[in-house]
Amino acid sequence: MAATVAPTVLGGSAAATPDKTAVPASDKPAAADKGGDVRNLTLYMEKLPNGEMGYGLRPGEATIPGPLIELTEGDTMNIEVVNNLDVAASLHVHGLDYDVASDGTKMNDSVVQPGERRTYVWRTHAPGRRQDGTWEAGSAGYWHYHDHNVGTEHGTGGIKKGLYGPVVVRRKGDALPDKQFTVVFNDMTINNRTAPNTPMFKAVRGERVEFIVITHGDFFHTFHIHGHRWVDNRTGILEGPQDVSRVIDTKTTGPADSFGFQVIAGERVGAGHWMYHCHVQSHSDMGMSGVFMVTEADGTVPGGMHSMPDMPDMPGM
Amino acid sequence: MAATVAPTVLGGSAAATPDKTAVPASDKPAAADKGGDVRNLTLYMEKLPNGEMGYGLRPGEATIPGPLIELTEGDTMNIEVVNNLDVAASLHVHGLDYDVASDGTKMNDSVVQPGERRTYVWRTHAPGRRQDGTWEAGSAGYWHYHDHNVGTEHGTGGIKKGLYGPVVVRRKGDALPDKQFTVVFNDMTINNRTAPNTPMFKAVRGERVEFIVITHGDFFHTFHIHGHRWVDNRTGILEGPQDVSRVIDTKTTGPADSFGFQVIAGERVGAGHWMYHCHVQSHSDMGMSGVFMVTEADGTVPGGMHSMPDMPDMPGM
Amino acid sequence: MAATVAPTVLGGSAAATPDKTAVPASDKPAAADKGGDVRNLTLYMEKLPNGEMGYGLRPGEATIPGPLIELTEGDTMNIEVVNNLDVAASLHVHGLDYDVASDGTKMNDSVVQPGERRTYVWRTHAPGRRQDGTWEAGSAGYWHYHDHNVGTEHGTGGIKKGLYGPVVVRRKGDALPDKQFTVVFNDMTINNRTAPNTPMFKAVRGERVEFIVITHGDFFHTFHIHGHRWVDNRTGILEGPQDVSRVIDTKTTGPADSFGFQVIAGERVGAGHWMYHCHVQSHSDMGMSGVFMVTEADGTVPGGMHSMPDMPDMPGM
Ligand SMILES: [Cu+2]
Ligand SMILES: [Cu+2]
Ligand SMILES: [Cu+2]
Repeated sequence: MAATVAPTVLGGSAAATPDKTAVPASDKPAAADKGGDVRNLTLYMEKLPNGEMGYGLRPGEATIPGPLIELTEGDTMNIEVVNNLDVAASLHVHGLDYDVASDGTKMNDSVVQPGERRTYVWRTHAPGRRQDGTWEAGSAGYWHYHDHNVGTEHGTGGIKKGLYGPVVVRRKGDALPDKQFTVVFNDMTINNRTAPNTPMFKAVRGERVEFIVITHGDFFHTFHIHGHRWVDNRTGILEGPQDVSRVIDTKTTGPADSFGFQVIAGERVGAGHWMYHCHVQSHSDMGMSGVFMVTEADGTVPGGMHSMPDMPDMPGM
Repeated sequence: MAATVAPTVLGGSAAATPDKTAVPASDKPAAADKGGDVRNLTLYMEKLPNGEMGYGLRPGEATIPGPLIELTEGDTMNIEVVNNLDVAASLHVHGLDYDVASDGTKMNDSVVQPGERRTYVWRTHAPGRRQDGTWEAGSAGYWHYHDHNVGTEHGTGGIKKGLYGPVVVRRKGDALPDKQFTVVFNDMTINNRTAPNTPMFKAVRGERVEFIVITHGDFFHTFHIHGHRWVDNRTGILEGPQDVSRVIDTKTTGPADSFGFQVIAGERVGAGHWMYHCHVQSHSDMGMSGVFMVTEADGTVPGGMHSMPDMPDMPGM
Repeated sequence: MAATVAPTVLGGSAAATPDKTAVPASDKPAAADKGGDVRNLTLYMEKLPNGEMGYGLRPGEATIPGPLIELTEGDTMNIEVVNNLDVAASLHVHGLDYDVASDGTKMNDSVVQPGERRTYVWRTHAPGRRQDGTWEAGSAGYWHYHDHNVGTEHGTGGIKKGLYGPVVVRRKGDALPDKQFTVVFNDMTINNRTAPNTPMFKAVRGERVEFIVITHGDFFHTFHIHGHRWVDNRTGILEGPQDVSRVIDTKTTGPADSFGFQVIAGERVGAGHWMYHCHVQSHSDMGMSGVFMVTEADGTVPGGMHSMPDMPDMPGM
């Protein structure tokens, strides 16, 4: 399990995957095209060999977190969920548009019995003016999905065992990253693991790296990364000199909260082993800590690493 | 107690109460007029039959939360507080302008003894430039009031028993809602109740619904609502395409934190029973959960409700 | 220890120290000049007589929190750290630019052995456009430094004992304060003390006062101040009428989170004893509370103080 990388499901027009690894970047980053596509996807809910549970794109390939699902505002995603578990489970998404039939709750009779399948429909929309003249916000954001039925009607048991995954909705023109990493603070774990089994995220200096950070469970956490910082706004990227948002390198977050941002790996600080961790002291001491390894273009890293050597690789997607 | 609705005290120029229930809205929403009024109000602090405590507009009518008090920037509110409790208690407000004599603390000798009364003065102001050229922020926001003396000098006992309520200060031009609902996460309760006795908030699809969310007590919580989302800025409403604020459907919040937002009921998701709950898993499992019921204009709701059937009605104000 | 005031280390061009005490302010506040200076500083890590640990500018003068270090975007600070403790310790900074050699972690082999010294280099930069056309955020912000090695590899033991301090990075043109106060919520303490030994911050009505708020340890807190409020953006100051940020007087914060803001002492509320405290009820009751004392120009304070009389003075820097 440790080295398994969750795959990415790209929305139609966001599917450009630049292979830029040059240092430093001088080309304009690829940008999200306009949305409006309708796509279909199948997700399998399965038990993992160790008793955990996960979502996967194919039978036997469930991961924790589940596959990253990307859309551009305007896209619709029809997701057929196959329940290969022995308990009723569901798919509940945050931030997107869906009818009660796609709510994923027992209350709205939208869970999937063992051995059955059900199609959930997620829609998204761009910001715009309503008929009444007020502004409606768009769907773009760093969101997530999770079970809302296993254990309790709020999905406490399913989430604990790993039934969660990331969703990114982009706005037309948003910069596309070179690599993406998902960090889920799920109780006292990162992606259901603790150090030294937390993922080691690897990037080349100059790459545009996206972090998607989600919290689940019963506790608050503070996400911190060494040597890099971001903007506390919608994209995590400064929108220009008029943007008054706070620049941060630590964010307090609680269950079902999610945010994301992009950094240029090693920008102004160079290649190196950069820790990311929950900054609640007892949490990091108990293993909520990992490494963001930024290499030079030739794969070398200055300084070596003098502790925490056993992290599994996580090459990015 | 369960079905008691806390009344609303409207500031002078914000007193327009549109009766729009049409679906969908095509008229410009009513807007807050300019402030500057001076108003008087009496609040009674009383014990409820079950031993809880509350603020009310008339003797014997205390509610939890207390009455919603609304002002427009520039308004002044003189609040005569009558203490019908058997302990000294007070009125402390967040966000507004007040002298130490209206601080509501023992330290500033501004509490009310049992059987006595005291007038607290709240002032508000619009943003503007100071003489030194810098900008001063205005008073507009989603605020709240609470006791600061019962149990401890920080009002821990009074707050626990229900001595708290919402305050909204609007800016001239702010959109006025059709309905307003207050959610107070007070320790492991919502408005001092747990499911299935938490309020069921009811609105018609297309109505402009305002949520005011306040936290009290000892714990952090994460407010989440199904099928609806808002903007993490002053009004909770997108201010236009240049607004870089995050769009969210979950917000981490701690004691005395408060925020609010407006949604169009059922927008892009339709009528239905939409859960609102604290997303800390053990908290929602223990009863920090309720229902936002969005009906069609004819009162019907698609899909029915397959669990949590015993919520009391909360028709909005 | 109680009355010891941590000194301030000013970056070169931010070093203007206006002596304005007039009420009210009518002159434009002094502003941060352009950065670009390279400065040198020595910090001593020492044990205090009571067993706590601190950073200081001279041997025998360690304080909790450590010295306030101020820079303007573009400045570089070379900090020679002398370890007079009997354990290996380090200097880890948030938000600034540094190579792995200045990371202050065991993993990056950048801690200081007892009796030894090591130079850490902090760089800062202004916001600007990258070659690829995207915007890079600047370093300006309310940051902090702390040990990352005592007790555990995350510095849990060093932080608990007091090895932390504030850092402010300004942008050219940012308003400079008349006085500055640092509040560190470190577990259930404020600056490692509890009431009545928490600092009493003193200012004259009309002074521009800067608060720097940092959290450490294992718990979340909510910083609240009576009679004053701020803007939840980079500077804590409204940037103009187009600024959609929330105005707040309470902020939820977790370990390693930091923020800051400026208020005009007593603006719209007058002189007085204004409480600042963590608003988690049990935390304030246990002593996470202090007083911001705003005097008239002649030193008088209206109303007196009817409780919490034993706070040590903290005259500001
Ligand atoms: Cu944590
Ligand atoms: Cu909760
Ligand atoms: Cu606290």
